[in-house]
Amino acid sequence: MGIVNGTTNYILTKMDDEGVPYDDALKEAQELGFAEADPTADVEGLDAARKMAILARLAFSTPVDLNDVEVSGISDLELTDFQYGKKLGFTMKLIGIANFDNNQVEVSVQPVFLKSDHPLANVKNEYNAVYVNGEAVGETMFYGPGAGSLPTATAVMSDVVSVIKNKLLGVNGHRFTKPRFEKVLKKPENRYGQFYFRLHVKDEVGAFTTISSLFNQLNISFERILQAPIKPENRNELAEVIVVTHETSLDKFKKVLEDLQNVEVVEEVKSYFRIEGDVE
Amino acid sequence: MGIVNGTTNYILTKMDDEGVPYDDALKEAQELGFAEADPTADVEGLDAARKMAILARLAFSTPVDLNDVEVSGISDLELTDFQYGKKLGFTMKLIGIANFDNNQVEVSVQPVFLKSDHPLANVKNEYNAVYVNGEAVGETMFYGPGAGSLPTATAVMSDVVSVIKNKLLGVNGHRFTKPRFEKVLKKPENRYGQFYFRLHVKDEVGAFTTISSLFNQLNISFERILQAPIKPENRNELAEVIVVTHETSLDKFKKVLEDLQNVEVVEEVKSYFRIEGDVE
Repeated sequence: MGIVNGTTNYILTKMDDEGVPYDDALKEAQELGFAEADPTADVEGLDAARKMAILARLAFSTPVDLNDVEVSGISDLELTDFQYGKKLGFTMKLIGIANFDNNQVEVSVQPVFLKSDHPLANVKNEYNAVYVNGEAVGETMFYGPGAGSLPTATAVMSDVVSVIKNKLLGVNGHRFTKPRFEKVLKKPENRYGQFYFRLHVKDEVGAFTTISSLFNQLNISFERILQAPIKPENRNELAEVIVVTHETSLDKFKKVLEDLQNVEVVEEVKSYFRIEGDVE
Repeated sequence: MGIVNGTTNYILTKMDDEGVPYDDALKEAQELGFAEADPTADVEGLDAARKMAILARLAFSTPVDLNDVEVSGISDLELTDFQYGKKLGFTMKLIGIANFDNNQVEVSVQPVFLKSDHPLANVKNEYNAVYVNGEAVGETMFYGPGAGSLPTATAVMSDVVSVIKNKLLGVNGHRFTKPRFEKVLKKPENRYGQFYFRLHVKDEVGAFTTISSLFNQLNISFERILQAPIKPENRNELAEVIVVTHETSLDKFKKVLEDLQNVEVVEEVKSYFRIEGDVE
Protein backbone atom coordinates (compact mmCIF):
# COMPACT_ATOMS: atom_id res chain seq x y z
CA MET A 1 0.00 0.00 0.00
CA GLY A 2 1.53 3.33 -0.87
CA ILE A 3 1.32 7.07 -1.26
CA VAL A 4 3.33 7.31 -4.46
CA ASN A 5 2.47 10.72 -5.89
CA GLY A 6 3.71 13.91 -4.23
CA THR A 7 1.43 16.38 -6.05
CA THR A 8 -1.84 14.72 -5.03
CA ASN A 9 -0.61 14.15 -1.48
CA TYR A 10 0.22 17.85 -1.22
CA ILE A 11 -3.29 18.77 -2.45
CA LEU A 12 -5.01 16.29 -0.10
CA THR A 13 -2.97 17.53 2.89
CA LYS A 14 -4.05 21.13 2.17
CA MET A 15 -7.68 20.03 1.88
CA ASP A 16 -7.58 17.88 5.01
CA ASP A 17 -5.48 20.00 7.37
CA GLU A 18 -6.51 23.49 6.27
CA GLY A 19 -9.90 23.03 4.61
CA VAL A 20 -8.63 24.50 1.32
CA PRO A 21 -10.98 23.58 -1.59
CA TYR A 22 -9.59 21.36 -4.36
CA ASP A 23 -9.17 24.08 -7.00
CA ASP A 24 -7.22 26.38 -4.67
CA ALA A 25 -5.05 23.55 -3.38
CA LEU A 26 -4.21 22.57 -6.97
CA LYS A 27 -3.31 26.19 -7.78
CA GLU A 28 -0.98 26.30 -4.74
CA ALA A 29 0.67 23.05 -5.85
CA GLN A 30 1.20 24.50 -9.32
CA GLU A 31 2.70 27.71 -7.93
CA LEU A 32 5.14 25.65 -5.84
CA GLY A 33 6.18 23.71 -8.94
CA PHE A 34 4.80 20.38 -7.60
CA ALA A 35 1.98 20.19 -10.15
CA GLU A 36 2.44 20.66 -13.88
CA ALA A 37 0.42 23.10 -16.03
CA ASP A 38 -1.62 20.11 -17.19
CA PRO A 39 -2.04 18.20 -13.92
CA THR A 40 -4.16 15.38 -15.40
CA ALA A 41 -1.61 12.56 -15.03
CA ASP A 42 -1.20 13.39 -11.34
CA VAL A 43 -4.73 14.24 -10.19
CA GLU A 44 -6.44 11.46 -12.16
CA GLY A 45 -4.11 8.91 -10.56
CA LEU A 46 -2.31 7.83 -13.75
CA ASP A 47 1.18 8.59 -12.46
CA ALA A 48 0.42 6.62 -9.29
CA ALA A 49 -1.08 3.77 -11.37
CA ARG A 50 2.12 3.46 -13.44
CA LYS A 51 4.22 3.28 -10.28
CA MET A 52 1.91 0.70 -8.70
CA ALA A 53 2.07 -1.46 -11.85
CA ILE A 54 5.90 -1.39 -11.70
CA LEU A 55 5.97 -2.11 -7.95
CA ALA A 56 3.47 -4.97 -8.31
CA ARG A 57 5.53 -6.56 -11.13
CA LEU A 58 8.72 -6.37 -9.06
CA ALA A 59 7.13 -7.49 -5.80
CA PHE A 60 4.99 -10.35 -7.11
CA SER A 61 6.85 -11.35 -10.27
CA THR A 62 3.67 -11.40 -12.34
CA PRO A 63 3.16 -9.39 -15.58
CA VAL A 64 0.74 -6.72 -14.36
CA ASP A 65 0.41 -3.77 -16.71
CA LEU A 66 -1.26 -0.38 -16.55
CA ASN A 67 -4.57 -1.71 -17.93
CA ASP A 68 -4.87 -4.04 -14.97
CA VAL A 69 -4.83 -1.16 -12.50
CA GLU A 70 -8.22 0.20 -11.44
CA VAL A 71 -7.78 3.94 -11.18
CA SER A 72 -9.75 6.83 -9.83
CA GLY A 73 -8.40 10.29 -9.10
CA ILE A 74 -8.95 13.14 -6.67
CA SER A 75 -10.41 15.91 -8.86
CA ASP A 76 -14.01 15.33 -7.73
CA LEU A 77 -13.32 15.25 -4.00
CA GLU A 78 -15.42 17.56 -1.82
CA LEU A 79 -14.41 19.07 1.53
CA THR A 80 -17.64 17.73 3.06
CA ASP A 81 -16.22 14.20 2.97
CA PHE A 82 -12.94 15.33 4.56
CA GLN A 83 -14.99 16.82 7.42
CA TYR A 84 -16.97 13.61 7.96
CA GLY A 85 -13.66 11.72 7.76
CA LYS A 86 -12.29 13.76 10.66
CA LYS A 87 -15.34 12.93 12.77
CA LEU A 88 -14.91 9.25 11.98
CA GLY A 89 -11.13 9.16 12.57
CA PHE A 90 -10.15 8.91 8.88
CA THR A 91 -7.64 10.79 6.73
CA MET A 92 -8.19 11.03 2.95
CA LYS A 93 -5.21 9.79 0.92
CA LEU A 94 -4.68 8.71 -2.68
CA ILE A 95 -3.59 5.14 -2.00
CA GLY A 96 -2.11 2.60 -4.36
CA ILE A 97 -2.92 -0.95 -3.30
CA ALA A 98 -1.16 -4.01 -4.67
CA ASN A 99 -2.09 -7.34 -3.19
CA PHE A 100 -1.04 -10.88 -4.01
CA ASP A 101 -2.33 -14.04 -2.42
CA ASN A 102 -3.21 -17.51 -3.67
CA ASN A 103 -1.32 -16.48 -6.82
CA GLN A 104 -3.96 -13.86 -7.55
CA VAL A 105 -3.13 -10.20 -7.91
CA GLU A 106 -5.11 -6.98 -7.41
CA VAL A 107 -3.79 -3.49 -8.14
CA SER A 108 -5.70 -0.24 -7.70
CA VAL A 109 -5.26 3.49 -7.11
CA GLN A 110 -8.04 5.50 -5.49
CA PRO A 111 -8.86 8.05 -2.83
CA VAL A 112 -9.09 6.03 0.38
CA PHE A 113 -10.18 6.86 3.91
CA LEU A 114 -7.20 5.78 5.99
CA LYS A 115 -7.59 5.19 9.72
CA SER A 116 -5.77 8.06 11.40
CA ASP A 117 -3.47 5.90 13.51
CA HIS A 118 -2.07 4.08 10.49
CA PRO A 119 1.56 5.10 9.76
CA LEU A 120 0.63 6.19 6.22
CA ALA A 121 -1.95 8.66 7.59
CA ASN A 122 0.82 10.98 8.83
CA VAL A 123 2.58 11.13 5.46
CA LYS A 124 1.97 14.76 4.57
CA ASN A 125 2.54 17.34 1.85
CA GLU A 126 4.87 16.22 -0.95
CA TYR A 127 6.14 13.19 1.03
CA ASN A 128 5.66 9.66 -0.27
CA ALA A 129 5.73 6.31 1.49
CA VAL A 130 5.40 2.65 0.61
CA TYR A 131 3.94 0.30 3.20
CA VAL A 132 5.02 -3.29 2.61
CA ASN A 133 3.61 -6.33 4.37
CA GLY A 134 6.03 -9.22 3.94
CA GLU A 135 5.14 -12.82 4.74
CA ALA A 136 8.03 -13.21 7.19
CA VAL A 137 9.09 -9.69 8.11
CA GLY A 138 5.57 -8.33 8.73
CA GLU A 139 4.75 -4.68 8.23
CA THR A 140 7.46 -2.28 7.07
CA MET A 141 7.38 1.24 5.69
CA PHE A 142 9.77 3.34 3.60
CA TYR A 143 9.21 7.08 3.70
CA GLY A 144 10.79 10.08 1.99
CA PRO A 145 10.28 13.14 -0.18
CA GLY A 146 8.28 12.52 -3.37
CA ALA A 147 9.50 15.60 -5.23
CA GLY A 148 12.30 18.16 -5.36
CA SER A 149 15.59 18.41 -7.22
CA LEU A 150 18.03 17.14 -4.56
CA PRO A 151 15.86 14.21 -3.39
CA THR A 152 15.39 13.17 -7.03
CA ALA A 153 19.13 13.47 -7.67
CA THR A 154 19.76 11.30 -4.60
CA ALA A 155 17.44 8.60 -5.94
CA VAL A 156 19.07 8.70 -9.38
CA MET A 157 22.58 8.40 -7.86
CA SER A 158 21.40 5.51 -5.72
CA ASP A 159 20.17 3.74 -8.87
CA VAL A 160 23.48 4.41 -10.62
CA VAL A 161 25.36 2.85 -7.69
CA SER A 162 23.05 -0.20 -7.86
CA VAL A 163 23.71 -0.58 -11.58
CA ILE A 164 27.49 -0.41 -11.04
CA LYS A 165 27.33 -2.97 -8.22
CA ASN A 166 25.14 -5.28 -10.31
CA LYS A 167 27.59 -5.02 -13.22
CA LEU A 168 30.46 -5.96 -10.89
CA LEU A 169 28.39 -8.84 -9.49
CA GLY A 170 27.50 -9.99 -13.00
CA VAL A 171 23.78 -9.57 -12.30
CA ASN A 172 21.60 -8.23 -15.11
CA GLY A 173 18.26 -7.95 -13.38
CA HIS A 174 16.40 -10.43 -15.61
CA ARG A 175 15.60 -12.53 -12.55
CA PHE A 176 13.55 -9.59 -11.34
CA THR A 177 12.02 -8.30 -14.55
CA LYS A 178 11.11 -11.69 -16.05
CA PRO A 179 7.80 -12.69 -14.40
CA ARG A 180 7.77 -16.07 -12.70
CA PHE A 181 4.01 -16.30 -12.20
CA GLU A 182 1.17 -16.26 -14.68
CA LYS A 183 -1.07 -13.24 -14.23
CA VAL A 184 -4.38 -14.08 -12.56
CA LEU A 185 -6.41 -11.03 -11.55
CA LYS A 186 -8.36 -11.35 -8.34
CA LYS A 187 -12.13 -11.55 -8.84
CA PRO A 188 -14.39 -8.98 -7.10
CA GLU A 189 -15.85 -11.68 -4.83
CA ASN A 190 -12.35 -12.38 -3.49
CA ARG A 191 -11.53 -8.74 -2.80
CA TYR A 192 -12.53 -7.31 0.54
CA GLY A 193 -12.76 -3.90 2.09
CA GLN A 194 -14.68 -1.58 4.35
CA PHE A 195 -16.66 1.18 2.67
CA TYR A 196 -17.99 4.67 3.39
CA PHE A 197 -21.09 6.06 1.64
CA ARG A 198 -22.49 9.59 1.77
CA LEU A 199 -26.13 9.65 0.70
CA HIS A 200 -28.72 12.36 0.23
CA VAL A 201 -31.91 10.77 1.40
CA LYS A 202 -35.53 11.92 1.21
CA ASP A 203 -36.61 12.84 4.68
CA GLU A 204 -39.69 10.64 4.88
CA VAL A 205 -41.03 7.89 7.09
CA GLY A 206 -39.49 4.50 6.36
CA ALA A 207 -36.62 5.90 4.28
CA PHE A 208 -33.97 4.63 6.58
CA THR A 209 -35.57 1.19 6.86
CA THR A 210 -35.56 0.92 3.07
CA ILE A 211 -31.87 1.79 2.92
CA SER A 212 -30.77 -0.51 5.70
CA SER A 213 -32.73 -3.41 4.18
CA LEU A 214 -30.66 -3.03 0.97
CA PHE A 215 -27.54 -3.64 3.04
CA ASN A 216 -29.19 -6.43 5.06
CA GLN A 217 -30.21 -8.32 1.92
CA LEU A 218 -26.54 -8.52 0.93
CA ASN A 219 -25.45 -9.41 4.44
CA ILE A 220 -23.40 -6.20 4.78
CA SER A 221 -23.32 -4.97 8.36
CA PHE A 222 -22.82 -1.37 9.53
CA GLU A 223 -19.93 -0.22 11.67
CA ARG A 224 -21.28 3.32 12.01
CA ILE A 225 -24.11 5.51 10.80
CA LEU A 226 -24.33 9.30 11.02
CA GLN A 227 -27.26 11.42 10.02
CA ALA A 228 -26.94 15.17 9.62
CA PRO A 229 -29.17 17.94 8.34
CA ILE A 230 -28.02 19.51 5.08
CA LYS A 231 -28.36 22.99 3.62
CA PRO A 232 -31.03 24.96 5.51
CA GLU A 233 -33.17 25.50 2.40
CA ASN A 234 -33.49 21.73 1.92
CA ARG A 235 -33.70 20.78 5.54
CA ASN A 236 -37.30 19.67 5.31
CA GLU A 237 -36.84 17.48 2.31
CA LEU A 238 -33.37 15.90 2.46
CA ALA A 239 -31.10 14.41 5.07
CA GLU A 240 -27.43 13.52 4.70
CA VAL A 241 -26.67 9.97 5.78
CA ILE A 242 -23.18 8.52 6.25
CA VAL A 243 -22.83 4.75 6.29
CA VAL A 244 -19.61 2.97 7.30
CA THR A 245 -19.79 -0.76 6.60
CA HIS A 246 -17.89 -3.63 8.13
CA GLU A 247 -15.65 -5.58 5.78
CA THR A 248 -17.45 -6.94 2.74
CA SER A 249 -16.52 -8.17 -0.72
CA LEU A 250 -16.13 -5.83 -3.68
CA ASP A 251 -18.95 -7.47 -5.65
CA LYS A 252 -21.37 -6.91 -2.77
CA PHE A 253 -20.17 -3.31 -2.50
CA LYS A 254 -20.86 -2.80 -6.22
CA LYS A 255 -24.29 -4.41 -5.92
CA VAL A 256 -25.33 -2.25 -2.96
CA LEU A 257 -24.04 0.87 -4.71
CA GLU A 258 -26.23 0.04 -7.73
CA ASP A 259 -29.22 -0.64 -5.47
CA LEU A 260 -28.73 2.69 -3.66
CA GLN A 261 -28.56 4.54 -6.97
CA ASN A 262 -31.83 2.95 -8.08
CA VAL A 263 -33.94 3.11 -4.94
CA GLU A 264 -36.52 5.89 -4.81
CA VAL A 265 -35.76 7.28 -1.31
CA VAL A 266 -32.12 7.97 -2.18
CA GLU A 267 -31.94 11.31 -3.97
CA GLU A 268 -28.23 10.89 -4.72
CA VAL A 269 -25.19 8.83 -3.76
CA LYS A 270 -22.89 11.81 -3.19
CA SER A 271 -19.70 9.84 -2.63
CA TYR A 272 -18.23 6.50 -1.61
CA PHE A 273 -14.72 5.51 -0.56
CA ARG A 274 -12.81 2.42 0.45
CA ILE A 275 -11.57 2.42 4.06
CA GLU A 276 -8.14 0.97 4.83
CA GLY A 277 -5.50 0.92 7.52
CA ASP A 278 -6.45 -1.45 10.30
CA VAL A 279 -3.42 -1.58 12.56
CA GLU A 280 -2.87 -5.14 13.79
CA MET B 1 16.12 10.18 15.40
CA GLY B 2 14.75 6.76 16.16
CA ILE B 3 12.57 4.42 18.13
CA VAL B 4 15.04 1.56 18.39
CA ASN B 5 13.75 -0.59 21.24
CA GLY B 6 10.56 -2.63 20.84
CA THR B 7 10.01 -3.43 24.53
CA THR B 8 9.93 0.17 25.73
CA ASN B 9 7.82 1.24 22.74
CA TYR B 10 5.30 -1.46 23.62
CA ILE B 11 5.16 -0.26 27.24
CA LEU B 12 4.83 3.42 26.24
CA THR B 13 2.06 2.60 23.73
CA LYS B 14 0.09 0.81 26.45
CA MET B 15 0.57 3.73 28.83
CA ASP B 16 -0.33 6.34 26.21
CA ASP B 17 -3.23 4.69 24.37
CA GLU B 18 -4.83 2.74 27.21
CA GLY B 19 -3.72 4.54 30.35
CA VAL B 20 -2.08 1.38 31.76
CA PRO B 21 0.38 2.24 34.58
CA TYR B 22 4.08 1.49 34.00
CA ASP B 23 4.30 -1.60 36.24
CA ASP B 24 1.31 -3.29 34.60
CA ALA B 25 2.48 -2.43 31.09
CA LEU B 26 5.90 -3.91 31.89
CA LYS B 27 4.25 -7.09 33.20
CA GLU B 28 2.21 -7.40 29.96
CA ALA B 29 5.37 -6.95 27.90
CA GLN B 30 7.07 -9.70 29.92
CA GLU B 31 4.09 -12.04 29.48
CA LEU B 32 4.20 -11.48 25.71
CA GLY B 33 7.92 -12.31 25.69
CA PHE B 34 8.95 -8.80 24.58
CA ALA B 35 10.62 -7.90 27.89
CA GLU B 36 13.12 -10.13 29.67
CA ALA B 37 12.86 -11.20 33.31
CA ASP B 38 15.44 -8.53 34.14
CA PRO B 39 14.21 -5.67 31.94
CA THR B 40 16.89 -3.18 33.04
CA ALA B 41 18.80 -2.97 29.72
CA ASP B 42 15.57 -2.15 27.90
CA VAL B 43 13.71 0.13 30.30
CA GLU B 44 16.78 2.12 31.36
CA GLY B 45 17.57 2.85 27.72
CA LEU B 46 20.88 0.94 27.55
CA ASP B 47 19.86 -1.28 24.63
CA ALA B 48 18.70 1.81 22.72
CA ALA B 49 21.92 3.65 23.64
CA ARG B 50 24.08 0.85 22.22
CA LYS B 51 22.12 0.93 18.96
CA MET B 52 22.35 4.72 18.73
CA ALA B 53 26.14 4.59 19.29
CA ILE B 54 26.47 2.09 16.41
CA LEU B 55 24.16 4.11 14.13
CA ALA B 56 26.00 7.36 14.93
CA ARG B 57 29.39 5.76 14.15
CA LEU B 58 28.14 4.45 10.82
CA ALA B 59 26.25 7.59 9.83
CA PHE B 60 28.82 10.19 10.87
CA SER B 61 32.08 8.21 10.68
CA THR B 62 33.24 9.45 14.06
CA PRO B 63 34.26 7.13 16.96
CA VAL B 64 31.28 7.63 19.29
CA ASP B 65 31.05 5.01 22.03
CA LEU B 66 28.48 4.08 24.65
CA ASN B 67 29.97 6.48 27.24
CA ASP B 68 29.26 9.39 24.93
CA VAL B 69 25.54 8.67 24.88
CA GLU B 70 23.42 10.52 27.44
CA VAL B 71 20.82 8.05 28.60
CA SER B 72 17.67 8.16 30.62
CA GLY B 73 15.03 5.45 30.76
CA ILE B 74 11.29 5.11 31.16
CA SER B 75 10.91 3.42 34.56
CA ASP B 76 10.00 6.64 36.39
CA LEU B 77 7.35 7.84 33.95
CA GLU B 78 3.96 8.75 35.39
CA LEU B 79 0.60 8.61 33.59
CA THR B 80 -0.06 12.22 34.61
CA ASP B 81 2.50 13.41 32.07
CA PHE B 82 0.98 11.26 29.32
CA GLN B 83 -2.36 12.91 30.02
CA TYR B 84 -0.90 16.42 29.81
CA GLY B 85 0.91 15.34 26.65
CA LYS B 86 -2.41 14.43 25.03
CA LYS B 87 -3.83 17.86 25.86
CA LEU B 88 -0.76 19.50 24.34
CA GLY B 89 -0.67 17.33 21.21
CA PHE B 90 2.36 15.24 22.26
CA THR B 91 3.04 11.49 22.30
CA MET B 92 5.61 10.08 24.74
CA LYS B 93 8.32 8.00 23.03
CA LEU B 94 11.78 6.74 24.02
CA ILE B 95 13.76 8.52 21.32
CA GLY B 96 17.37 8.09 20.33
CA ILE B 97 18.82 11.27 18.85
CA ALA B 98 22.07 11.40 16.90
CA ASN B 99 23.04 14.69 15.40
CA PHE B 100 26.12 15.83 13.51
CA ASP B 101 26.84 19.33 12.28
CA ASN B 102 29.96 21.47 12.07
CA ASN B 103 31.86 18.24 12.73
CA GLN B 104 30.33 18.06 16.20
CA VAL B 105 28.30 15.10 17.36
CA GLU B 106 25.56 14.64 19.96
CA VAL B 107 23.96 11.31 20.87
CA SER B 108 21.25 10.75 23.47
CA VAL B 109 18.42 8.41 24.45
CA GLN B 110 15.56 9.72 26.55
CA PRO B 111 11.79 9.84 26.91
CA VAL B 112 10.71 12.63 24.56
CA PHE B 113 7.40 14.35 23.92
CA LEU B 114 6.95 13.97 20.19
CA LYS B 115 4.51 16.20 18.32
CA SER B 116 1.60 13.96 17.35
CA ASP B 117 1.74 14.70 13.63
CA HIS B 118 5.37 13.59 13.34
CA PRO B 119 5.69 10.26 11.48
CA LEU B 120 7.50 8.65 14.45
CA ALA B 121 4.53 9.43 16.72
CA ASN B 122 2.43 6.72 15.03
CA VAL B 123 5.06 4.01 15.52
CA LYS B 124 3.24 1.80 18.01
CA ASN B 125 3.64 -1.35 20.09
CA GLU B 126 6.76 -3.40 19.31
CA TYR B 127 7.44 -1.53 16.05
CA ASN B 128 10.68 0.41 15.52
CA ALA B 129 11.58 3.19 13.12
CA VAL B 130 14.61 5.27 12.23
CA TYR B 131 14.04 8.81 10.98
CA VAL B 132 16.98 10.04 8.91
CA ASN B 133 17.49 13.60 7.76
CA GLY B 134 20.05 13.62 4.93
CA GLU B 135 21.68 16.76 3.60
CA ALA B 136 20.48 16.16 0.04
CA VAL B 137 17.60 13.69 0.33
CA GLY B 138 15.83 15.46 3.19
CA GLU B 139 13.67 13.51 5.65
CA THR B 140 13.31 9.75 5.27
CA MET B 141 12.00 7.04 7.56
CA PHE B 142 12.47 3.27 7.76
CA TYR B 143 9.86 1.38 9.75
CA GLY B 144 9.36 -2.24 10.75
CA PRO B 145 8.89 -4.74 13.57
CA GLY B 146 11.41 -4.43 16.42
CA ALA B 147 10.92 -7.93 17.81
CA GLY B 148 9.69 -11.40 16.89
CA SER B 149 11.32 -14.53 15.49
CA LEU B 150 10.50 -14.21 11.78
CA PRO B 151 11.28 -10.46 11.52
CA THR B 152 14.61 -11.10 13.28
CA ALA B 153 15.36 -14.03 10.96
CA THR B 154 14.58 -11.77 7.98
CA ALA B 155 17.06 -9.15 9.23
CA VAL B 156 19.76 -11.80 9.79
CA MET B 157 19.26 -13.25 6.30
CA SER B 158 19.44 -9.77 4.82
CA ASP B 159 22.79 -9.23 6.58
CA VAL B 160 24.06 -12.59 5.31
CA VAL B 161 23.15 -11.59 1.74
CA SER B 162 24.99 -8.27 2.22
CA VAL B 163 28.09 -10.09 3.46
CA ILE B 164 28.04 -12.43 0.46
CA LYS B 165 27.62 -9.52 -1.96
CA ASN B 166 30.42 -7.59 -0.29
CA LYS B 167 32.71 -10.61 -0.51
CA LEU B 168 31.96 -10.92 -4.22
CA LEU B 169 32.57 -7.17 -4.66
CA GLY B 170 35.82 -7.40 -2.68
CA VAL B 171 34.55 -4.90 -0.11
CA ASN B 172 35.47 -5.53 3.51
CA GLY B 173 33.58 -2.74 5.24
CA HIS B 174 36.64 -0.96 6.70
CA ARG B 175 35.66 2.17 4.82
CA PHE B 176 32.55 2.26 7.01
CA THR B 177 33.89 1.09 10.34
CA LYS B 178 37.14 3.13 10.31
CA PRO B 179 36.14 6.63 11.48
CA ARG B 180 37.09 9.45 9.17
CA PHE B 181 36.40 12.30 11.60
CA GLU B 182 37.85 13.07 14.99
CA LYS B 183 35.25 12.89 17.74
CA VAL B 184 34.13 16.31 18.97
CA LEU B 185 31.11 16.21 21.27
CA LYS B 186 28.70 19.07 20.93
CA LYS B 187 28.72 21.47 23.91
CA PRO B 188 25.45 22.13 25.80
CA GLU B 189 25.37 25.73 24.55
CA ASN B 190 25.27 24.44 20.96
CA ARG B 191 22.48 21.95 21.59
CA TYR B 192 18.93 23.19 21.24
CA GLY B 193 15.50 21.89 22.10
CA GLN B 194 12.06 22.72 23.36
CA PHE B 195 11.24 21.59 26.88
CA TYR B 196 8.24 20.62 29.02
CA PHE B 197 8.22 21.06 32.81
CA ARG B 198 5.63 19.87 35.33
CA LEU B 199 5.93 21.77 38.60
CA HIS B 200 4.17 21.60 41.95
CA VAL B 201 3.94 25.20 43.02
CA LYS B 202 2.88 26.78 46.30
CA ASP B 203 -0.45 28.43 45.73
CA GLU B 204 0.47 31.90 46.97
CA VAL B 205 0.46 35.45 45.64
CA GLY B 206 3.42 36.20 43.38
CA ALA B 207 4.43 32.56 42.93
CA PHE B 208 3.89 32.56 39.21
CA THR B 209 5.73 35.87 38.78
CA THR B 210 8.72 34.40 40.61
CA ILE B 211 8.74 31.35 38.30
CA SER B 212 8.30 33.25 35.06
CA SER B 213 11.10 35.67 36.05
CA LEU B 214 13.50 32.68 36.32
CA PHE B 215 12.76 31.90 32.66
CA ASN B 216 12.87 35.57 31.65
CA GLN B 217 16.32 36.06 33.18
CA LEU B 218 17.66 33.32 30.89
CA ASN B 219 15.76 34.67 27.91
CA ILE B 220 13.67 31.50 27.59
CA SER B 221 10.21 32.23 26.24
CA PHE B 222 7.04 30.21 26.84
CA GLU B 223 5.04 28.51 24.11
CA ARG B 224 2.30 27.37 26.49
CA ILE B 225 1.40 27.36 30.15
CA LEU B 226 -1.28 25.26 31.84
CA GLN B 227 -2.30 25.46 35.45
CA ALA B 228 -4.45 22.78 37.05
CA PRO B 229 -5.58 21.96 40.58
CA ILE B 230 -4.04 18.85 42.09
CA LYS B 231 -5.25 16.30 44.62
CA PRO B 232 -8.28 17.67 46.50
CA GLU B 233 -6.54 17.42 49.88
CA ASN B 234 -3.76 19.75 48.70
CA ARG B 235 -5.90 22.01 46.59
CA ASN B 236 -5.48 24.97 48.88
CA GLU B 237 -1.76 24.72 49.11
CA LEU B 238 -0.39 23.47 45.80
CA ALA B 239 -1.07 23.99 42.11
CA GLU B 240 0.26 21.98 39.20
CA VAL B 241 1.88 24.13 36.54
CA ILE B 242 2.93 22.92 33.08
CA VAL B 243 5.42 25.03 31.17
CA VAL B 244 6.25 24.44 27.50
CA THR B 245 9.20 26.54 26.36
CA HIS B 246 10.17 27.72 22.92
CA GLU B 247 13.49 26.43 21.62
CA THR B 248 16.41 27.13 23.92
CA SER B 249 19.91 25.79 24.47
CA LEU B 250 20.64 22.82 26.69
CA ASP B 251 22.81 24.84 29.10
CA LYS B 252 20.00 27.34 29.66
CA PHE B 253 17.58 24.45 30.20
CA LYS B 254 19.93 22.98 32.83
CA LYS B 255 20.33 26.34 34.52
CA VAL B 256 16.57 27.00 34.71
CA LEU B 257 15.99 23.46 36.02
CA GLU B 258 18.51 24.11 38.82
CA ASP B 259 16.89 27.48 39.58
CA LEU B 260 13.42 25.89 39.73
CA GLN B 261 14.68 23.21 42.11
CA ASN B 262 16.12 25.87 44.40
CA VAL B 263 13.42 28.52 44.43
CA GLU B 264 11.18 28.54 47.48
CA VAL B 265 7.76 28.71 45.74
CA VAL B 266 8.41 25.51 43.79
CA GLU B 267 7.57 22.55 46.00
CA GLU B 268 8.88 20.06 43.46
CA VAL B 269 9.90 19.74 39.82
CA LYS B 270 7.81 16.62 39.13
CA SER B 271 9.09 15.97 35.61
CA TYR B 272 10.71 17.51 32.55
CA PHE B 273 11.04 16.26 28.97
CA ARG B 274 12.55 17.33 25.71
CA ILE B 275 10.02 18.07 22.93
CA GLU B 276 10.84 17.04 19.37
CA GLY B 277 9.21 16.51 16.02
CA ASP B 278 8.57 19.79 14.28
CA VAL B 279 7.37 18.86 10.83
CA GLU B 280 8.88 21.22 8.27
